[in-house]
Amino acid sequence: MKLYQSIAEKIRERIEQGYYQVNEKLPSIRTLSQEHDVSVSTAQQALLFLEKEHWIEVRAKSGSYVKAQLAAAEMPQPCRPAQYPLKVSQWKEVRALRSLYKGHSDDFLYLSSGMSDIDAPTLKPLLKIMSHLTIREGVRCLTPDTLQGAVELREQIARLALDGGTRLHPDDIITTTGCQEALAISLQALTKAGDVVAVESPGFYGLMQILKALDLQALEIPAHADDGMSLDALEMALDQWPIKAILVIPTENNPLGSTMPDENKVRLLKMTQRYNTPIIEDDIYGDLRYKQPRPRTLHSFDTEGRVILCSSFSKTMSAALRIGWVAPGRYKERIEHMKYIGTANTTTLTQLAIAEFIKQGYYERHVRTVRQQYRLNRDQLTHMLQTYFPKGTRISAPRGAYILWIELPGDVDTLLLNKRLVQHKIQIAPGVIFSASGKYRNCLRINYARPVPKSAVLAISQEAKELLAESLMPQ
Amino acid sequence: MKLYQSIAEKIRERIEQGYYQVNEKLPSIRTLSQEHDVSVSTAQQALLFLEKEHWIEVRAKSGSYVKAQLAAAEMPQPCRPAQYPLKVSQWKEVRALRSLYKGHSDDFLYLSSGMSDIDAPTLKPLLKIMSHLTIREGVRCLTPDTLQGAVELREQIARLALDGGTRLHPDDIITTTGCQEALAISLQALTKAGDVVAVESPGFYGLMQILKALDLQALEIPAHADDGMSLDALEMALDQWPIKAILVIPTENNPLGSTMPDENKVRLLKMTQRYNTPIIEDDIYGDLRYKQPRPRTLHSFDTEGRVILCSSFSKTMSAALRIGWVAPGRYKERIEHMKYIGTANTTTLTQLAIAEFIKQGYYERHVRTVRQQYRLNRDQLTHMLQTYFPKGTRISAPRGAYILWIELPGDVDTLLLNKRLVQHKIQIAPGVIFSASGKYRNCLRINYARPVPKSAVLAISQEAKELLAESLMPQ
Ligand SMILES: Cc1ncc(COP(=O)(O)O)c(C=O)c1O
Ligand SMILES: Cc1ncc(COP(=O)(O)O)c(C=O)c1O
Repeated sequence: MKLYQSIAEKIRERIEQGYYQVNEKLPSIRTLSQEHDVSVSTAQQALLFLEKEHWIEVRAKSGSYVKAQLAAAEMPQPCRPAQYPLKVSQWKEVRALRSLYKGHSDDFLYLSSGMSDIDAPTLKPLLKIMSHLTIREGVRCLTPDTLQGAVELREQIARLALDGGTRLHPDDIITTTGCQEALAISLQALTKAGDVVAVESPGFYGLMQILKALDLQALEIPAHADDGMSLDALEMALDQWPIKAILVIPTENNPLGSTMPDENKVRLLKMTQRYNTPIIEDDIYGDLRYKQPRPRTLHSFDTEGRVILCSSFSKTMSAALRIGWVAPGRYKERIEHMKYIGTANTTTLTQLAIAEFIKQGYYERHVRTVRQQYRLNRDQLTHMLQTYFPKGTRISAPRGAYILWIELPGDVDTLLLNKRLVQHKIQIAPGVIFSASGKYRNCLRINYARPVPKSAVLAISQEAKELLAESLMPQ
Repeated sequence: MKLYQSIAEKIRERIEQGYYQVNEKLPSIRTLSQEHDVSVSTAQQALLFLEKEHWIEVRAKSGSYVKAQLAAAEMPQPCRPAQYPLKVSQWKEVRALRSLYKGHSDDFLYLSSGMSDIDAPTLKPLLKIMSHLTIREGVRCLTPDTLQGAVELREQIARLALDGGTRLHPDDIITTTGCQEALAISLQALTKAGDVVAVESPGFYGLMQILKALDLQALEIPAHADDGMSLDALEMALDQWPIKAILVIPTENNPLGSTMPDENKVRLLKMTQRYNTPIIEDDIYGDLRYKQPRPRTLHSFDTEGRVILCSSFSKTMSAALRIGWVAPGRYKERIEHMKYIGTANTTTLTQLAIAEFIKQGYYERHVRTVRQQYRLNRDQLTHMLQTYFPKGTRISAPRGAYILWIELPGDVDTLLLNKRLVQHKIQIAPGVIFSASGKYRNCLRINYARPVPKSAVLAISQEAKELLAESLMPQ
C-alpha cells in the first residue's frame, strides 16, 4: 500500500466510525499533512483518492466534505426463467469450480464455497470429543452402525428440531452422509428419469446437479430475494405440468438469502394437496438465522407426511464431518432403500461425536456465537459492496447464514470474471450454475463466513468494472 | 465349560494336531484320569462327550479309537438361474434382516453380517491415530475434502493396489463412502432405468439391491464356488441381450468364496471387447486372501480403461469408517458427477486416519494377522459343519476372507430357518437375498470373522434338521 493510500484509509476509518460526520468539512490539506506527518502533496493525493472512492466530495473554493451515506442497495429482482421443464446443464462449470478447490489453503480465497467458519473457537470442543471418543468408546467407533443411524444422534436431532417447530420421534429420522445424500436419496425415491421437478430459480447448484445426474427435468420457479419462491408461478406450473416433486429451501435460501413467510408455507401446502405433490424441504441454514426464534420449518405445518425434511451439520459445524439427516415422512421405505444402496450405513465416529457435542451444550453455544459473527461480516461486506461495486449493483439481504447474492449491472459475465480472478487468487460462485438453463450470467454468490478482506472486494470490483466497460465498447 | 468338557477339548486338540492318529487307540480311562489329574468318572464323561461329537468311537471290550477324518465336503453346485433379464425382488427380506441388526450386541450372534473382526488387537492403533489426528491436525480434520478425496489416502491406495498387479496413479482414484457407494455410482454412471446388467448368481445382495433401486434388470449368470462366473453362460448372454455392464467379484466372491483364474480374466476381457462392455470389478475381499501373493485383479489385465475397480476398507478394517474407493477408468467424468450429487466430499478424518494407518505399516501387519485367524476359523467351522450338519450339505471352500456359503439338502427354507433362529439369538443370511429371482431358498451364508461357537452350529443344524424332516412329511 502506498503512503497516500494508508493516509486515506485512516481518514476513511474515521468517517466510518462517525468521527467525521456526513457533510462535515474535513481539515485542510495543510492540517492533515501536519497531523499525519506527511508532505502536503501526499495529503492531497489521499484526498483525491478518497474522492475517487466516493467517500468525500471536493467543493470548489471551499474544501473537502464527507459524502452522504449510501442508501440500502436494491435487491436482485426475480427474472423470468423458462416456463417449461428443461434439462439441466452446467456440470462442466460446477466441475471446473470444484476442481480448482485443492483443499484448505491460506493463499487462495474461495469466496465461491459454501464452507462454514471452521476456525471458530466454539467448534474446538468437537475435536476434543472426537479424540476422547476413540479412546473411551474404542471398538464402538469401529462398529458399523444401523441403516437408520446412531440413536444417540437421532435423539439430539429430534430435540434440536423443536426450535423450528418440527416434531419428530428419533425413529422418524435417518442419518445420512451430509445433506447432499439426504436430497439425492429423496429425489431418487420420488422420481424416475424424465420426470419434472419444480425448483427455485436461482437455486442451489448442488440440487440442480442432482436433477441433471438423474436425468430429471427442471421447472424453474422464479424466487425473490425477500420471500423466496413465487407461489403464483408455482400454482400455474402445478396446473400445467406433471410435477413429481418440489424442492424448496424456505429458510435462508441458497443463494438468495430469502425466507418464505409462514402464510406462504400454509398456502404452499394447501396448493400441493390437490395433486398430492411431495415436497423436499432443505433446512440446512435454518439454525443460522441471526435473530431467534428461527422461522418454523415447512415440515412443522405439514399434517400429511408429504414434506421430506433434509438437513445436516455441514453449515452449522463442518462439511468435513459428512453428517446429515432426513425425516422421510410417508416415503420412508423407499428412501431407506436408496440410502441402503447408496452408502449403506453412515460413519459411526462422526455421528457419535456430534451427538456428544450437542448433548454437552456445545452446539447451542457455537451457533449462537457464529450467528453474531456472520451478521457482523454481512454488515461489513454489504457496506463495502455498496461503496466499491459498480453503480446499479443489486445485493441480497440475508437474515441468517453467510452467503450473499449479487446482481451486477449490464452484461458482465461472471464466468469470465472468475477467470480473471484466478490471478488475484480469488474465486466467486458464478451465477450460471444456479440455473438449469444458464441464466444469471451477471450474478455471483459470495461466502462471508469469514470477514471478506477489502482487497478482495476491490479486486472483484475492479475486474467487474473493466468487464462492464468492455461490454459497453462497440465490437 | 464343565471340567469334563475341558478335558475333552484337550484330547480333541491332540487329535487335530495329529498327536493321536486316526484308528489309534487312546490311553485307557485310568491313564487319562491320572494324566489330567481328574477323577475316573470325569475322564469317562470326557470320552463319552468325544464319542457323541464323532471324534472317537468306543469299540466293545477294546477301548476308544480315533475316528477317521471326514472327507472334504462337496461344493455347492451352480444352479440354472433364469436365462432372461428380470427385475430384482427381495428388498423386503434384506430390509427385515438389516432392521433386526440393532448395532453391536454381545448376546446376539449376527452370522448374517459381512462384518470383519473389529476386535482384532492389530486394529487398535487406528483408534490411537484417530485420537492423535484430531489433536495434531486440528482444523484440518474439519476442512471439507476435495471431490476426489484426500491425496494422502489416494497415494497409499495406489501403493497397496500394486499387490494385486493394479497400476494406478493417485489421480486415477476417487475415494468414496464405502465400496457400496463406489458400486452404486459406477452403475448409475453406466446405466439408465430398464437396462440389463449381468451379475453373478448367487450374488452379493447389496449389489442386487442397487439393481432393484435403479430399476435395472438383472441377468443372472451362474457361478461356481470354485472358479466363479461361468464365461460360457456369459458369452451366450452377451450375444443375446443388450448388456450395459457386468458386475463381477473375481477374488473371494461374496457369497461363493470363488476366485476367477487368470486365464478366465483374460478371456472375459476379450469377450467383452467386441461389445465394448464396461465391467465393474468389486475387489473388497482381495487383500484377505490367506496365501500371498494375492490373485491379480481383472483391472490389472485391462488395457482399455473398461474395468472400473471398486473396493473399500470395510472388510480389511471396519465398515464403520465408510471409506472406499473407485478407479473409474474411462468413465471418470460421469462417475465423478454421480459421486458429487450423491454425497459430495468424503469424510476427512477417517480418510486421513486410514492413510496414516497404512503409511505407518499397521495395515500390512493387521491384514497378515487377521488372514491367519480367518483361515483357522474357516477350518474349525468347516469341520463342525461337516460333522453336525445334515448329510448332503454342500459347503464352499473359500481361500480368503471370512464367509461361507452352505447348500442344505432337500427343501429346507432358510428364511423359515432364520425365523426359528431368532429364539437362539442367531441370524444367518438366507440364500434368497443372493438372487434376483428368489432362488437359493435352501442356501445360507455364514460369517466366520470370529470363531463360530459350536453351540451356534448345533442350534442351526438342529433347526435345519427339523425343517428337513418337516419338509419330508406328507402334508
Ligand atoms: C442449500 C444446500 N443444501 C445442501 C447442501 C449440501 O450439504 P452437505 O455438505 O451437508 O451435503 C448445501 C451445501 O453446499 C447447501 O448449500
Ligand atoms: C462384495 C461386497 N461388496 C461391497 C460391499 C459393501 O462394502 P462397504 O461397507 O465398503 O460399502 C460388501 C459388504 O457387505 C460386500 O460384501
